[in-house]
Amino acid sequence: MKLIESKNIEEIIEACARPSISNEQIKPIIEEVFKEIANKGDEAVLKYTHFFDKVDLNQLEMERSVVEELAAQTSVELQEAIKVAAKNIERFHASQQINSTKIETAPGVFCWQESRGIERVGIYIPGGTAPLFSTVLMLAIPAKIAGCKEIILCTPPDKNGNINPAIAFAASITGVNRVFRVGGAQAIAAMTYGTESVPKVYKIFGPGNQFVTAAKVKAQEYGVAIDMPAGPSELMVVADDSCVPAFVAADLLSQAEHGTDSQVICVLNNAELYEPILTEVKAQLADLPRKDIAEKALENSRFIITEDRLSTIEIINEYAPEHLIICTEYNNELIMNIENAGSVFVGNYTPESAGDYASGTNHTLPTAGFAKAYSGVNLDAFTKKITFQEISKNGIQELGPTIEKMAEAELLQAHKNAVTLRLK
Amino acid sequence: MKLIESKNIEEIIEACARPSISNEQIKPIIEEVFKEIANKGDEAVLKYTHFFDKVDLNQLEMERSVVEELAAQTSVELQEAIKVAAKNIERFHASQQINSTKIETAPGVFCWQESRGIERVGIYIPGGTAPLFSTVLMLAIPAKIAGCKEIILCTPPDKNGNINPAIAFAASITGVNRVFRVGGAQAIAAMTYGTESVPKVYKIFGPGNQFVTAAKVKAQEYGVAIDMPAGPSELMVVADDSCVPAFVAADLLSQAEHGTDSQVICVLNNAELYEPILTEVKAQLADLPRKDIAEKALENSRFIITEDRLSTIEIINEYAPEHLIICTEYNNELIMNIENAGSVFVGNYTPESAGDYASGTNHTLPTAGFAKAYSGVNLDAFTKKITFQEISKNGIQELGPTIEKMAEAELLQAHKNAVTLRLK
Repeated sequence: MKLIESKNIEEIIEACARPSISNEQIKPIIEEVFKEIANKGDEAVLKYTHFFDKVDLNQLEMERSVVEELAAQTSVELQEAIKVAAKNIERFHASQQINSTKIETAPGVFCWQESRGIERVGIYIPGGTAPLFSTVLMLAIPAKIAGCKEIILCTPPDKNGNINPAIAFAASITGVNRVFRVGGAQAIAAMTYGTESVPKVYKIFGPGNQFVTAAKVKAQEYGVAIDMPAGPSELMVVADDSCVPAFVAADLLSQAEHGTDSQVICVLNNAELYEPILTEVKAQLADLPRKDIAEKALENSRFIITEDRLSTIEIINEYAPEHLIICTEYNNELIMNIENAGSVFVGNYTPESAGDYASGTNHTLPTAGFAKAYSGVNLDAFTKKITFQEISKNGIQELGPTIEKMAEAELLQAHKNAVTLRLK
Repeated sequence: MKLIESKNIEEIIEACARPSISNEQIKPIIEEVFKEIANKGDEAVLKYTHFFDKVDLNQLEMERSVVEELAAQTSVELQEAIKVAAKNIERFHASQQINSTKIETAPGVFCWQESRGIERVGIYIPGGTAPLFSTVLMLAIPAKIAGCKEIILCTPPDKNGNINPAIAFAASITGVNRVFRVGGAQAIAAMTYGTESVPKVYKIFGPGNQFVTAAKVKAQEYGVAIDMPAGPSELMVVADDSCVPAFVAADLLSQAEHGTDSQVICVLNNAELYEPILTEVKAQLADLPRKDIAEKALENSRFIITEDRLSTIEIINEYAPEHLIICTEYNNELIMNIENAGSVFVGNYTPESAGDYASGTNHTLPTAGFAKAYSGVNLDAFTKKITFQEISKNGIQELGPTIEKMAEAELLQAHKNAVTLRLK
């Protein structure tokens, strides 16, 4: 982890540039996958599954009973842990429900919004070494609360055509309606167009490698919404003398182990904290099973020593971290001034892992500075708000002339007529 | 307007297919505009302004005093109308503010969300024949309520380098911070990269022709958020014997006059309503200044006679209209069952024009069936929600083992360590 000595905010932000990724080479591959699946449906999906997942399936959907059988293979302890996490996630996301209020904006003019769950949503869960069953909870639970009617899940099969038991368990307790054994860009394309087996969905959620991300971006061209274009994960820790160096080091490593392209930034008000934290990082790193990954990620990572609280706040908001841990004596001041961040963890006893798994907040968050414009996944992400309005006969008499005047000025006579006729 | 006789919902929806638009030809043009503005900044913007708007500007930004001078040219009556509309729009969007509630998801585990306005937003207002000053209200008012710190507006200049006075007036009363005389794809590219004059923004809002829309889609590749990819406008009217044929006809025409690619769909429960409505459409059409446009749009438009309420509901939700007017004896039943629509107008005295201008609801809405996954622009569109969590020392003792178990099962040891260390 490089120590950045500059006090110039622009230079600091430049030194914290995220590892850049280019999707240019994979675009043509994605184009081809989409084209083939548009034309050949399941046949093409099965071909790609044979190619990438080394398995020949006779059907893409996994029967409910098979999902349940697999789910039962999850250890009782893990089942219990998943249930605790699910309950907290449900509580927090249920608290995000809002009631529509009908407003009388002008006499006789009533306006309101109503939330509706997006009818059909698709959840993508990657396979690979780390089975991300926690992401099933993070996506299926709010979908259910939002009232999404059909929740489908795609995840790549192993060589035996099975999926990870913990993923099956998480799917079975969260109300996922259908499970498909499809991974990669082919899963995203299948949910975009719909195939004989896989239904077309209106919105696709979930993480994935750069093929999956590029495919999600492509899906948007066909009118399918996506949660967000997710990039490599990142964490900023802001600490002062009130922090515990061993905790800070552990948090930095918990992010660094995600992938070689992860980035962690440690912002300190006091140069004397640098050494003890770095020492802890090195000590803890030694025993990690994913040591090589974390080590590589630490190369992209930075220590920053700030001059004062104001510059700390500026660095946070300019970097716009996906995850932000604050362990300082002025946490409340920071909270009030944080403009751009995905999820914020306050105090010495709030590790990022808590939010990754079980505290109740969502772990699908804006990376790469997207926190400047995007929220993380929350209940809103699974709903649309429809506007309604009802105007009384007297209401239109009163408001009508305003509308007529404006329509006329925009040279839209028929817009005006629609009012004029009602005023007669 | 063609009458669709089928009772098969799939066939009906197929008959209501939106006029398709291909962006393939304009993609390379957009690429070039973006590339040139990325490299040459203002110089390239001025070049395109010379080319498209036939004016040589010495500066892109319009001084505050000049905006005010132009604004003052707006007639007093129109100023008053704009103010009435602005007040209603402000009331409705202010009512969408929500207070964050802190939830204790588990003992000692506190989670909450806080809304923050997106710091820098860009509003694009097209020029052309119809000066869309109403869109300034629809975008700048919620931006202000949301707490966006910098609201910039881009709109193409006329041949004298001026902008429309009503647009200037709307900008000046709504708190737009800076006005730039730039139109088309060059405006979107300038707001995407930032130039010497035009600041880079985090989210771009506003309508435009297909060049502007394609440029907004392109902007997303650079991490800039957009309100939505807007297509041609559309309206569905659902009416039964309780409707007034002349009102229905006026509403259909008010949408049809927008553009030749607009579409209006009239869903009736009773075939006998068809003739009187069509007669009214023809009669009212004759006097419209934008008759040619409306006539062309009516070619894409359809009458549908439905069998029953259920199929009416199904047609609404499958078509997912941007605007939906319901004039029936069972409006409440419809409201409860509408899943997919942008904005709904209830009853005989609620023309779409009301929502276009002055009732308070937003008129930037999802077209082309996007209402299946997207909301229209509302206060949310200008905010991000940041998640916060704070766990007490006792809280992590209780929740910790759950996190440890899950992290271990996902093979993420450092995630587990961050908790284990805190439990000691």
